[in-house]
Order: sequence, then structure tokens, then C-alpha cells
Amino acid sequence: ADQSAMGRARERQAQLTKPAGALGDLEELSIRLAGIFGKEKPHPRGVAVIVAAGDHGVAQDGVSAYPPEVTPMMVMNFLADTPGGAGGAAVNAIARTVGAKVYVMDAGVNAELPDHPRLHRHAVRRGTRNLRTEPAMTRQETETLVLAGAALARTAIQDGADLLIPGEMGIGNTTPAAAVTARLLNADPQRVTGRGTGVNDETLARKVQVVREALNRTPTTDPLDVLAEFGGYEIAAMLGVMLQAAASGKAVILDGFVEGSAALVGAELNPALKDYLLPAGECAEIGHAAQLAHLGLTPMFNLGLRLGEGTGGVLAAPLILAAAATLREMQTFAEAGVPGA
Amino acid sequence: ADQSAMGRARERQAQLTKPAGALGDLEELSIRLAGIFGKEKPHPRGVAVIVAAGDHGVAQDGVSAYPPEVTPMMVMNFLADTPGGAGGAAVNAIARTVGAKVYVMDAGVNAELPDHPRLHRHAVRRGTRNLRTEPAMTRQETETLVLAGAALARTAIQDGADLLIPGEMGIGNTTPAAAVTARLLNADPQRVTGRGTGVNDETLARKVQVVREALNRTPTTDPLDVLAEFGGYEIAAMLGVMLQAAASGKAVILDGFVEGSAALVGAELNPALKDYLLPAGECAEIGHAAQLAHLGLTPMFNLGLRLGEGTGGVLAAPLILAAAATLREMQTFAEAGVPGA
Repeated sequence: ADQSAMGRARERQAQLTKPAGALGDLEELSIRLAGIFGKEKPHPRGVAVIVAAGDHGVAQDGVSAYPPEVTPMMVMNFLADTPGGAGGAAVNAIARTVGAKVYVMDAGVNAELPDHPRLHRHAVRRGTRNLRTEPAMTRQETETLVLAGAALARTAIQDGADLLIPGEMGIGNTTPAAAVTARLLNADPQRVTGRGTGVNDETLARKVQVVREALNRTPTTDPLDVLAEFGGYEIAAMLGVMLQAAASGKAVILDGFVEGSAALVGAELNPALKDYLLPAGECAEIGHAAQLAHLGLTPMFNLGLRLGEGTGGVLAAPLILAAAATLREMQTFAEAGVPGA
Repeated sequence: ADQSAMGRARERQAQLTKPAGALGDLEELSIRLAGIFGKEKPHPRGVAVIVAAGDHGVAQDGVSAYPPEVTPMMVMNFLADTPGGAGGAAVNAIARTVGAKVYVMDAGVNAELPDHPRLHRHAVRRGTRNLRTEPAMTRQETETLVLAGAALARTAIQDGADLLIPGEMGIGNTTPAAAVTARLLNADPQRVTGRGTGVNDETLARKVQVVREALNRTPTTDPLDVLAEFGGYEIAAMLGVMLQAAASGKAVILDGFVEGSAALVGAELNPALKDYLLPAGECAEIGHAAQLAHLGLTPMFNLGLRLGEGTGGVLAAPLILAAAATLREMQTFAEAGVPGA
């Protein structure tokens, strides 16, 4: 991040026509945007959400309230032509209200998906292996999906995106996210394994046990190995989106627990990634708070969301655009001729 | 509110392509919007913020960190032609990012404001009398400003507003807001009198004492009398905005503590107003939480805002538009051909 721009933004924010600190967390957010975009008056415009979908071998252990068949059906829902526009899922509906573009990626769905002009096909396998008993992905598969995510991020940036939101769909994927989070935060599985789409106590106990068994397979802490051993194709793709966004000087809005697990891997690979991560809401999944604390992010809202798809990130986008606008379009006391405090 | 539309919306929300409850508070919000707009698939579009400005006799008691001269200067800032567009205050900058229209009203500013095509002039007096020692407004002045607020709300609605945000500017106005709130909630002044723009401990103690003296002048609990005795011109105008919005079947986004005091008066006059009030953020002013609890509202975000001007309401607008979009544009499990839970 551009420290000089941040310094100038901080100075300007203190002179804007409002009581000192009255814009609360939006003030620090605006200064971070100045750092990311290298300008005292940052002007992010385009918003893109990249929804990566993948299936998970561990789903056969019954860790989700939904059957794995839902993953490809939701991908078709992301792509459906509906009276409201392209896509009939929550992320599509919400993205239309804020003018965000939605990119849909098959990162490794366990189905023969039909060709579709809006479907970006990058699957190397129909779902991961079962992380409880073996590495979910090979190292090469992992790297391929990271690069695929990065490539789609470049497309979104070429299309005008300044704020990139990695989102996901994958029945069972809070289990790999919990395993990655537990290892990288050195946390007990119980502390970071949650109810996902809404599993009951029995299934939750099974999830925790699955994560524990997985972690016991290997002591690795190498971030890409952790991702390969315990992660998933869509998690690797989201990591690629984040790394590319940061490398291109764009901001990442970090939504949700599965997205958070990708961010933990990214921050291990390159701590500078944290400078480019912006918070969205607090997600209802246990373990999300620990991820955000580790990444130095304070959530902006708590709406009890636990949907994924990048929905929380899309909801955060207007708050982020507003924060930037205060630096850019508010007058200072001097400019307005108002006596300051 | 339309109970039948709410029932149908609740049923539809439960069938949308997401785990049950995964959209958190947005689900109940969407159902309330169905009730307000009388449609299972509500479609609010236009957003208007009406910023009413007024001065306060009690400011001479030194209850604010800023001199009263700031009120007219901020009004000119709301109207200024700037490189970013019309208006150089926070509410202008933020409103532009969400496409909200800003209406500026002189409800009783203590200055000779120049004519301006975007300034709606409704002042009947240059600031209120000192509420500590006498009624701040006459009953007739109060009613005149309520009607003026209602008239400007009708203009905004004619211009396309479906979501109306009452906002305010008035140095010293957290003191009348605290007095109105204390009386209507039957709360001790200490519990609902806060730091406003950021006063120190000594000034805060003086504010509490001022509120206490005011309340001791008269035992009235008649809502319009309470407003006249302890309120202010911009608070009366905001009340008019709220009552008109509800009467016209439009939603009100309730931002901030001063706005909240107007809402308390409105809910006393007509409890049905509560059906039309939507929450924004939690404002940093003590007493705001008690207002929201009384009105049955749960704040959607906590950004530590304490600016007024309707800024929190404008930031909430995209979340509200998104909630409506989920009912309108998401497919049900049946429509998408996805097996439900």
C-alpha cells in the first residue's frame, strides 16, 4: 500500500466538514483505500464478484445438510435466464442492485455442466478427494486452480473491476475451510468448525471429528501444502483471485468463512496481501471471527448472513464506495469556509 | 402494513434458493418491505434524503463543541457547487454513490440564508427559544414545521422516492433530542444525553443538567406538546417527513439519535408509523439504543457513525434495496429445479 497517499488521506480526512471522527470506521477505511489505489482521493468504481464452485470428496462423510447434487444445480441457478436478469441466486439479485458484475467459475464441480457463455470452465477434476483420508488436491491441481482464479480476476479487472469479491459455492466446503483455518491458526478444530448451511449437533460433532482426522494425517504448515491437503478447488481459485487483485493494485472485499480460509493461505504466502483485504460483515460461522482477527479486519455489519456466494461482500461494496467518496467529494472546512473545531 | 403481502412474502422467502435463514436479518427486512409496499415482491427504487436544518436557543448554554454559526455554514456546504457535484458535505458525497437525491430545508436556521434553487425555505423563526427556560417552539410553529416536512416529503415522493431518509443539521440539537427522548421514554436524562459532536465531561454534565431543568418546567406527555416544549424546528420537520412517508405507503429509513427523537413523537401520535420505519446503523450517541428498542428496530451495522445529516440512512439504503431484490429476483427451489432442504 502507498504510505504517502495514506498519510495525505489521513490529513485530508481530519479536515473534512464534520466533527473529528464522526464518520467512524469509514474514516480508516477511506485511508486504506487511498493506500491501495495510491491516491489521496481514491476513486474505485467497478465491482466484480467471482463465484467459484467446487465439490468435495468429504461430502460423502455427511458433513452438510444438503446433498452434493445441489452444487451443480446452484451453478445453473447462477447462470439462469430469469425475468429479473442473468442468474436467480442471492448473489445475482443482490449484485444487480449495486451494479456488480458476477463471474461464475466451475472450479471442480462433480457434474457434466453444459457449456454456457457465462460459465468459466477450469475444472481439473470432478470434486476433490476426501480430505479426511488423503490429500484433497495434488499440489499441481492446486496451483492450476490458483492460476485460473488469477486469470479470471484479470478478466474482471480488464472489464473495469476495482473491488473484487471472491465468492464460493460448494456443498461441504465449510469442512475444508475449517481444516485449513485450524491448521493455519493452530486452533483446535472445535473452535473453528461450525454449522455451515445449518447442520444439527450430531453432524457438527462428525464434522469436528473429520477435521481432526484430517489434521492428524500430516503436520504440514506450508501454506500451499495446507491448501492442497485440506482445501478445495474453489478455495484455491479464490486465493488466485485475491493474489491477482493485490498484484494489480485492486481491493479485495473479504466475505465469509470459506473465503477467509483462502485469505489465510494468501496472507501466509505474502503478508502484503493483508493491505488489500477489506472487511465485509460478520458471518454467522464460528471461526470467522478468529480469521478476521488474524487478518486485522473489523467487520462492518452483522446481519447474521451465512450464505456464501460472495453475498456479504457485495453488500459491503456500497459502504466501501461511500468511504472513498468522503475523501474525494467532501469539502474541507477551509474549502467550505466553515470554522473548524 | 399489508399483512397478506407479508404472509406471501414470508412463504416465498422460505422457498428461495438458499439454506433456510441464510440471508439473516435481510429476510425479515424483505418481509417488512412487502408489507409496506403491499406486494409479495416489493420493488422500491428511488431514495431521498431530506436534510432539515435548524438552530437552537439552548446552544447559548454551551451544550455543543461547535459554535451555532456552523449550522448556516453547513447548509451552504449542502448546497455548494463542488467539483464532485452538488453539495460538499458527507451526506452529499455518500448520497451520490447510491444515487440518492438530497433535499435541503431551512427549518429555522439563525441566519439570513441567500436564496438558492435547491434550498427549501420553511423557517418561521431564526432558531428556537432556550428549552431550558421556556418552550422551544409554540404549538403553531411546531405544526407549521411538521406540515412543511410533510410537503417536502410529498415533493420527494413525486420525484420518485420510495425510501425516505429524514436527516438533520443543527448545532446543539442532541440536547432537545435528549429532552424529548427522556420524556417520551420516561428515562433519566443521564441515560439518554450523550456527547453529540464530541463534548467533554464538563459540557456533558452541563447538558444533562440543562435537560433536567427543561423537564422540570412541565410534566406534559402529550407528544406534540413534548415536541414543542423541548424539540426543535428540524425535529418537527423530520416528524412531518416520517408521517407523510407512512401515509403515502413509503418506507422511512431511521438514522441517528435526533431523527430517533422525532420518530418517538411520531410513534406516540400514531403507533402504525412503526410499521414504516426501517433501521440503519447503531449511532454512537447514548440513548439511540433505547430509542431503537422502543421502536422495535435492530440496527444493521455499527460503523461508529455520529454525524447526523441522514448519512447512516443513506448507507443503509443499498442493504434495504438488496433485501427487496432477494424476494423479487431470486428463484425458488422449484423454479430453479433444485431439491430443497
